[in-house]
Amino acid sequence: MALIFQKYGGTSVGSVERIQNVANKVAKFVDDGHQVVVTVSAMSGETNRLTAMANEMQAQPCKREMDVLLTTGEQVTIALLSMALQAKGYPAISYTGWQVPIQTDKVHSKARIEHIDGTKILDQLGQGKVVIVAGFQGMNPEGDISTLGRGGSDTTAVALAAALNADECQIYTDVDGVYTTDPRVVPQAKRLDQITYDEMLELASLGAKVLQIRSVEFASKYKVPLRVLSSLKEGGGTLITSEENFKESEMEKPLISGIAFSRDEAKLMILGVPDKPGVAYQILGPISDANIDIDMIIQNQGVDGTTDFTFTMSRLDAEAAKAVLQSTANHLGAREVLMDDEIVKISMVGVGMKSHAGIASTMFKTLADNEINIQMIGTTEIKISVVIGEEHLEVAVQTLHEAFGLDK
Amino acid sequence: MALIFQKYGGTSVGSVERIQNVANKVAKFVDDGHQVVVTVSAMSGETNRLTAMANEMQAQPCKREMDVLLTTGEQVTIALLSMALQAKGYPAISYTGWQVPIQTDKVHSKARIEHIDGTKILDQLGQGKVVIVAGFQGMNPEGDISTLGRGGSDTTAVALAAALNADECQIYTDVDGVYTTDPRVVPQAKRLDQITYDEMLELASLGAKVLQIRSVEFASKYKVPLRVLSSLKEGGGTLITSEENFKESEMEKPLISGIAFSRDEAKLMILGVPDKPGVAYQILGPISDANIDIDMIIQNQGVDGTTDFTFTMSRLDAEAAKAVLQSTANHLGAREVLMDDEIVKISMVGVGMKSHAGIASTMFKTLADNEINIQMIGTTEIKISVVIGEEHLEVAVQTLHEAFGLDK
Repeated sequence: MALIFQKYGGTSVGSVERIQNVANKVAKFVDDGHQVVVTVSAMSGETNRLTAMANEMQAQPCKREMDVLLTTGEQVTIALLSMALQAKGYPAISYTGWQVPIQTDKVHSKARIEHIDGTKILDQLGQGKVVIVAGFQGMNPEGDISTLGRGGSDTTAVALAAALNADECQIYTDVDGVYTTDPRVVPQAKRLDQITYDEMLELASLGAKVLQIRSVEFASKYKVPLRVLSSLKEGGGTLITSEENFKESEMEKPLISGIAFSRDEAKLMILGVPDKPGVAYQILGPISDANIDIDMIIQNQGVDGTTDFTFTMSRLDAEAAKAVLQSTANHLGAREVLMDDEIVKISMVGVGMKSHAGIASTMFKTLADNEINIQMIGTTEIKISVVIGEEHLEVAVQTLHEAFGLDK
Repeated sequence: MALIFQKYGGTSVGSVERIQNVANKVAKFVDDGHQVVVTVSAMSGETNRLTAMANEMQAQPCKREMDVLLTTGEQVTIALLSMALQAKGYPAISYTGWQVPIQTDKVHSKARIEHIDGTKILDQLGQGKVVIVAGFQGMNPEGDISTLGRGGSDTTAVALAAALNADECQIYTDVDGVYTTDPRVVPQAKRLDQITYDEMLELASLGAKVLQIRSVEFASKYKVPLRVLSSLKEGGGTLITSEENFKESEMEKPLISGIAFSRDEAKLMILGVPDKPGVAYQILGPISDANIDIDMIIQNQGVDGTTDFTFTMSRLDAEAAKAVLQSTANHLGAREVLMDDEIVKISMVGVGMKSHAGIASTMFKTLADNEINIQMIGTTEIKISVVIGEEHLEVAVQTLHEAFGLDK
């Protein structure tokens, strides 16, 4: 008997029939002798419906009241799922965030969980019930309803799993696991049986949007084994866990786990900046002040006492960043500001690369063989990223996928 | 400055525009220097939508989960109304039932309020805020969400008003007050400026469905001045209060306040029952055991040692009651069971009639003058009811309304 936490998102509970389907999935685990705690989101479409009404009421809806409004979404789902299970003969009980209670800080609309009291849940599990908990919501120290922000239901599930020392936390989504890359680009992409938290974090942040980053961080911090699997198809999904828990020996561990990419990139260049100490801060400070996140940074020193500075950001922020940068350029007496929003970022991710220097050279050779020019390079311990022209994306990902044997 | 409680039902908050209209009404009272606590129902249609989903899940939805589900309805409304007020520049804050808290007993779907802690509400009023409380809902001793049953939002408003010693509790509805009778039957019907709790209870229970009986009983018990008025039209509505608070002198108090009627009546007769002690119980016991409420009862002793027994009930229960009665008739050796479901009940209501014996005779004479046969008569201290054939309803109500000067 294991203690299993499951999370079903809005699409998985998007209709009466789908909630009944979820009840069937839960029932199977109960039949197998497991204790199950289920976290659910609002039915798909519900959050948009509520938000639209709020926006008609107030241009900037009060965040406290917005939390009161939106949390009704999951409250509807927990009640319906509990009924569906009971109708099938499985005792079940639902809890809202405040009933558990899931205690958060005071930041409405993106609260952080501070404490979870698992007493009620353990008591109900002990009575043989399936416990259903509303995702995304909690209660703050003032007794107000709070919400955890985007992807909050994943966070609820993982936090509950951590607090109650779960054997596994299963996140049901509309994909059946984490793939070596996007199957729409590389049809030979393979589902990974397992992956480390660190790898998942790199893959998630690079556009493989299977899991919210925050919930992976949470799982990593509290060592909660996390499994991504489909709410519609059968299959074991992908287990996300610590490196030391990997079943295979280190020898068998692949060098590269997956290739992530992001089409949503833009590059800004400021050329001919008089080179003085502090110039990087003078360029990037105003960008940061404008709440624009930047990603990769390159500085090229010229021969004439000037320097060129290049950085990337989300394509959505590019125009705003360009305006800020132009103003900085005038101020610093730089020669020119250029923007390129026809670029993409490709990243090879794998814990195995720590000990294998050859990864980068294989990557660069593969791209060169295909006459793809590398515009920028960035590395971390478990990742190598390159920026290339967006017209090369498909060929680059396909050939890299093959070169590293990910389709085997 | 007065402390005013207001309650708006589902139709009054049935759309974004109507909620904004409610915000305007509330704002006027704030502008006039009053403190306002508002109780709201779920937006019209919402409860039906949620109930339909629950019924798809479970034939007899679990009452605990049904309460979790349905209470989301008011939670949506409180948040939206709070936003609407804030958008107009009026500080506002919403509370669900459990946040107040409104503590109830454990009976899901028709809980009774046991205690209300007004501390938070008073604190927020003191800070100059409009306080908005979800109607219909509370929290039971186990920390579960409970609901107060049909008309529960009226009960919430009156109970809050009683707990916080309100100057007045205003119930906004789709009618602009309590009338001397149904204006659809008597176009000359007049709105009453004021009426006693007892009169209102008689009128409400007889089909003048302006207020839920339970909330009037509550208001009467705690002496909360209750005012019924329209959420759409302007006007002072009808004040429901204790007899001693009436502004007019006793001399001016009308004998009759109003005429109520119910079309939803049926009559069952069991004839030729051998007359023995306990026969009434033997006849009515099985009806009561079948959960059928009966209203008026008449027993006629015959000359041959048998007795005839007649009683009325809701027309909806008539067939079921007839089946029970037929079985009793066989058992007791009665001669015959007859049913008449083409009857109506008309009731004259007024605290003034306590001291005026002439009311009944005027009533009977008026009906006789119009050749209307009286089938049954029942009286209380402040009410005389008659059962007549349903074809006479309109003429009876119109001529009685005129005979007692209610159109003056």
